[in-house]
Amino acid sequence: MSSGIKVKAPATISNLACGFDVLGAAIHLTADELIGRLVQKPGVHINRIYGVKKALPTNPNENTAGVAIQSFLRFLRADRVGIELDIYKKLPIGTGLGSSASSAAAGVMLANELLKRPLTKRELVPFSILGELAADGALHGDNVIPSLIGGVVFIRDIRSLSFKRVYHPPGLFVSIVFPQVKVLTREARGILSNHVPMKNFIKQTGNLGGLLLGLQSGDFEMIKCSLQDAIIEPQRAHLIPHFYEVQTAAHEAGALGCSISGSGPTIFAFSDELQKAEIIAQKMRKIYDLNKIECISHVSTINEQGTVLC
Amino acid sequence: MSSGIKVKAPATISNLACGFDVLGAAIHLTADELIGRLVQKPGVHINRIYGVKKALPTNPNENTAGVAIQSFLRFLRADRVGIELDIYKKLPIGTGLGSSASSAAAGVMLANELLKRPLTKRELVPFSILGELAADGALHGDNVIPSLIGGVVFIRDIRSLSFKRVYHPPGLFVSIVFPQVKVLTREARGILSNHVPMKNFIKQTGNLGGLLLGLQSGDFEMIKCSLQDAIIEPQRAHLIPHFYEVQTAAHEAGALGCSISGSGPTIFAFSDELQKAEIIAQKMRKIYDLNKIECISHVSTINEQGTVLC
Repeated sequence: MSSGIKVKAPATISNLACGFDVLGAAIHLTADELIGRLVQKPGVHINRIYGVKKALPTNPNENTAGVAIQSFLRFLRADRVGIELDIYKKLPIGTGLGSSASSAAAGVMLANELLKRPLTKRELVPFSILGELAADGALHGDNVIPSLIGGVVFIRDIRSLSFKRVYHPPGLFVSIVFPQVKVLTREARGILSNHVPMKNFIKQTGNLGGLLLGLQSGDFEMIKCSLQDAIIEPQRAHLIPHFYEVQTAAHEAGALGCSISGSGPTIFAFSDELQKAEIIAQKMRKIYDLNKIECISHVSTINEQGTVLC
Repeated sequence: MSSGIKVKAPATISNLACGFDVLGAAIHLTADELIGRLVQKPGVHINRIYGVKKALPTNPNENTAGVAIQSFLRFLRADRVGIELDIYKKLPIGTGLGSSASSAAAGVMLANELLKRPLTKRELVPFSILGELAADGALHGDNVIPSLIGGVVFIRDIRSLSFKRVYHPPGLFVSIVFPQVKVLTREARGILSNHVPMKNFIKQTGNLGGLLLGLQSGDFEMIKCSLQDAIIEPQRAHLIPHFYEVQTAAHEAGALGCSISGSGPTIFAFSDELQKAEIIAQKMRKIYDLNKIECISHVSTINEQGTVLC
């Protein structure tokens, strides 16, 4: 039995107001830690999952990390390899911070390290996506790709693995607040209309392009006016208690923009100064404190590394 | 009476497959030439419009260039200034190459030059937009802004004059074919559905972001897979005879992508080599020659200057 190694995968914010299903970013907040080792018995063996109230499957065919690792091993035709692991969930499930995606990212990273890096991080992307598909039932990469490779990532088309890292100004800060209420991704998807009014479609493409060009050129004014969601946010806001109060508080405290991360309930805000980001997080948090809703708040820069050995 | 000066404004391709109402680019093909001079009599006086079969209004309150110049003069409170001009239309109306937008761009440029440049080119943008609004009835900037300032331009929101130049690789070539059939912008807009299916909306935002990031980073592979239009092209293609045959011919000749410019009937294709661009133009043209439809074809790089003195 080999000595164990440990990897950690970050939480991610996704959609970023105007990039539904196409934009995500990793932050400095650990979502998953995995400790694993090579063992004699072939296959993936999940000993235990720590840190979540709801029991998650330890069967590797049903577990996000397990599915990701198995698809990676099959790709390498490594059918005699045995990997045993423990999963430490550092965030609850259903936060909008990509908890399941992080398991998939951590899983493939762990396996690749145990096998002495046969693939690059980018080459691990497809297996991490298959892992997340197992958990979520929907094929998308706006959490799992940034969690694995880091940074802000634009996903053009997940089926053809067409994605691109988006450069951004170094002074970009993220404030998040996660109220401890439950919003399930599948439900949050279910309420979305099947159609988008043409007018909103044009507005949203304007904002998405503005955000991408603003990020790449460090144009904070352009970033600020682009961080608007005319399509998804109005349909999901009612699922998150006090959403508009929190958004107003963030704007009043100087946020560049504020919207729902993924399908929520986490709310994120961007800003251009650390001090502002801290005040924004406090003000957002205060809304939930006043309403006696437990919440976690956090301030971070963009995490450029993604999943790493630790 | 002062001696005359002459300006020329380029044709523009717009939408660029996945950027409906938000993307346009200037090409090296003159759409309008204006010759004008300062005169004693205050106001704008259009002597004559050359080069178009259909009579265009010479009344400055109805003429695109006239409206643009008047709004510019009002902004400067230059109510005693008199400008007399002749307009030389170098392209027909209703091509999808921004003929009316070019008049507006040329108009404000001419007036600004005659007054010894009180404003920068970028500061002229609002007046050029008002000019085009007079002709088209719709407020958009994807022709008039690139015609004035040059380059590939992304328009985030025309009402707030929020737009940005998009960098692109130097080796980007444009082939166009303009079949001499009539498609009016207003009609082409009228047939568009008021709603976009959510699935196509996500696909189109993926392609738009991919195109912008691909252009900015010189990633021709990303540009190629992004040049698709899931929303507008399928609704307008039937207005343009032999559209799909032309598109297929362009793809077979190595185009990165091929779609309708603006509301058509001009069809444009991008490519990454001059020689390829010339073959693509020939192959596209051949479809119309075989079908005995008169057409103009042209090959160009992106025009970085926009409207210039000449």
